[in-house]
Amino acid sequence: MTRIPVSAASAGYEVVIGEGILDLLGEAVRKTVSPQKAMVVCGENVFPLYGERVRESLRASGIESEICVFPAGEKTKSIASFEELLQRAAESGLTRSDCFIALGGGVTGDLTGFAAATYQRGIDYVQVPTTLLAAVDSSVGGKTAVNLKAGKNQVGAFWQPALVWCDAACLQTLPQRELRAGFAEVIKYAVLSDVVLFEDLNRHSVRLPEVIEACVRMKAAIVAEDERDTGIRKLLNLGHTFGHAVEAESEYGLLHGEAVSVGTAMICRAAVKMGMLDRKDAASIICLLEDYGLPVSSPYDAERLWPRLLLDKKFAEGKIELIVPRAIGRCERIPMGREALAEWLQAGLEAEAGE
Amino acid sequence: MTRIPVSAASAGYEVVIGEGILDLLGEAVRKTVSPQKAMVVCGENVFPLYGERVRESLRASGIESEICVFPAGEKTKSIASFEELLQRAAESGLTRSDCFIALGGGVTGDLTGFAAATYQRGIDYVQVPTTLLAAVDSSVGGKTAVNLKAGKNQVGAFWQPALVWCDAACLQTLPQRELRAGFAEVIKYAVLSDVVLFEDLNRHSVRLPEVIEACVRMKAAIVAEDERDTGIRKLLNLGHTFGHAVEAESEYGLLHGEAVSVGTAMICRAAVKMGMLDRKDAASIICLLEDYGLPVSSPYDAERLWPRLLLDKKFAEGKIELIVPRAIGRCERIPMGREALAEWLQAGLEAEAGE
Repeated sequence: MTRIPVSAASAGYEVVIGEGILDLLGEAVRKTVSPQKAMVVCGENVFPLYGERVRESLRASGIESEICVFPAGEKTKSIASFEELLQRAAESGLTRSDCFIALGGGVTGDLTGFAAATYQRGIDYVQVPTTLLAAVDSSVGGKTAVNLKAGKNQVGAFWQPALVWCDAACLQTLPQRELRAGFAEVIKYAVLSDVVLFEDLNRHSVRLPEVIEACVRMKAAIVAEDERDTGIRKLLNLGHTFGHAVEAESEYGLLHGEAVSVGTAMICRAAVKMGMLDRKDAASIICLLEDYGLPVSSPYDAERLWPRLLLDKKFAEGKIELIVPRAIGRCERIPMGREALAEWLQAGLEAEAGE
Repeated sequence: MTRIPVSAASAGYEVVIGEGILDLLGEAVRKTVSPQKAMVVCGENVFPLYGERVRESLRASGIESEICVFPAGEKTKSIASFEELLQRAAESGLTRSDCFIALGGGVTGDLTGFAAATYQRGIDYVQVPTTLLAAVDSSVGGKTAVNLKAGKNQVGAFWQPALVWCDAACLQTLPQRELRAGFAEVIKYAVLSDVVLFEDLNRHSVRLPEVIEACVRMKAAIVAEDERDTGIRKLLNLGHTFGHAVEAESEYGLLHGEAVSVGTAMICRAAVKMGMLDRKDAASIICLLEDYGLPVSSPYDAERLWPRLLLDKKFAEGKIELIVPRAIGRCERIPMGREALAEWLQAGLEAEAGE
């Protein structure tokens, strides 16, 4: 079992990673939060796999629980689900000394975290990621959100979990597509700052718990320095600016990780054309994404993606920062106005000769 | 013009109080927030009075604005309004460097503040209170919220405004009932810690701007010490535990201030019966409330109020703190379990002989 401390400005907590640790969750929750009651939130696909095991583990540690099950998929990250979850919490008498538990992937974690951030102006929650994407990225760092019709993650809060409990054994039960999608975020971390991880991924020579640990350590270091996404944390948006536009345009037919993969490939191509990234490095990154079964081309043209890009919440004072790879293991934040962004978008959509 | 600094743990800002300062709002917003655009939120009763003046003042300072008008009344403090407001903000391209402006009373301020706390994970907002209640209480201190079917203020965030701009001249246009309701909160402050204000109120010898200033200074001192309501700030709940139950049971037919008045009278009666407050002091407080035209008796019996009390979000680990007046100008936080609370409720409902 590996324990990684996260020291964000607003709160400190641990990410615990292990294999076969799910049944120890109740005891860990008792020690960190000591609630009388927990509201467990999960998707309908995760519930039959782990729902009752989690409740039993809580029960064994003297914690009552209720469970709130939502349909799987991004559509659940809505204001309607948010209201339903809060209403359920209130009806079951959840108090400020109780907690929410997010059992599932990024959708469940983001929704539950936002409910925890705002229920009675903020109570504790515990992240129990069951997808690779949630384990390496969304469960750590306290970014919570739901979507509006007008865009992804447009409503949310920074609210750190009290504990992240990651049983890598749960990830083995993932559908292959989910697991692959998670590797898009893993590859993102490698491209950002870990050449060794990049090589290990290339050789498929690294086990899941170690992959998770490497990514969480990077994320913990970044969040410790910049909880509220005003500086270095923006690097984690690599592949996300174009990726979010692709994801939204697909109406969430593409998984988040798949869209990030497309977005990463696009920014690599654009960086090459702008003379900021070596053609060889770009090819290696795009190959690695393909090697993990991920899509690397946008199904949509500039005309369809452009309005989505303009809605990006990272726009401020008419500018947005693009995260641009300069080499494998080194990226840079480049602020640009709308015109430059349009050029980068166009460049990102044009396939390289030989690709 | 009086400027009162508020130094909360998460943010510092000024409460500016004056008469006839509404048209200077645009310049003040430009100096503190410098947005390109502002989303002005107000109730349908406030809009015809001040909506265009505020937009003109913003325009004169180079700030674009949109306006979002809601029906007046507590029912607007809903998740549905919250979603509508956020959707409007997203559609009009509000960014993280822009702001919301709450032009109105407590309902408008609480809703707008919660939208600002969560839109794109938090942007600036400015409070422009136009009711006495908002001026002396809800616009200062960063408590934002909307209601659930299951209870008042069950969803919200602590999120400090960037500026509070209070033109006492706007309050003069209030319906008498609104103005009276505001005095319930003013009397609360006096009972909490200001014997001089209590006497001034008794003699009706104090002007509105001075009343506001006295209350805001008290609130600023309390919020500076305890932003997140874990200690001394709970004193501001005087009259609110029973008051919220009465307010919810009336289905918001009673104004918040009216319910607080009833709650304050109830806790005074109960404190007398429990031997914690002198009968004379209780009578003075109740008389002062009546003198300002406020109700002092609950229309509902214990059976109807009890389930509402149990939903109070201040319950934690089976206990709740009641704020109990020990003398005019001095109150105490008394934690109690459900049984004791039931006794206090009963005692609070029994009118004193001679009342």
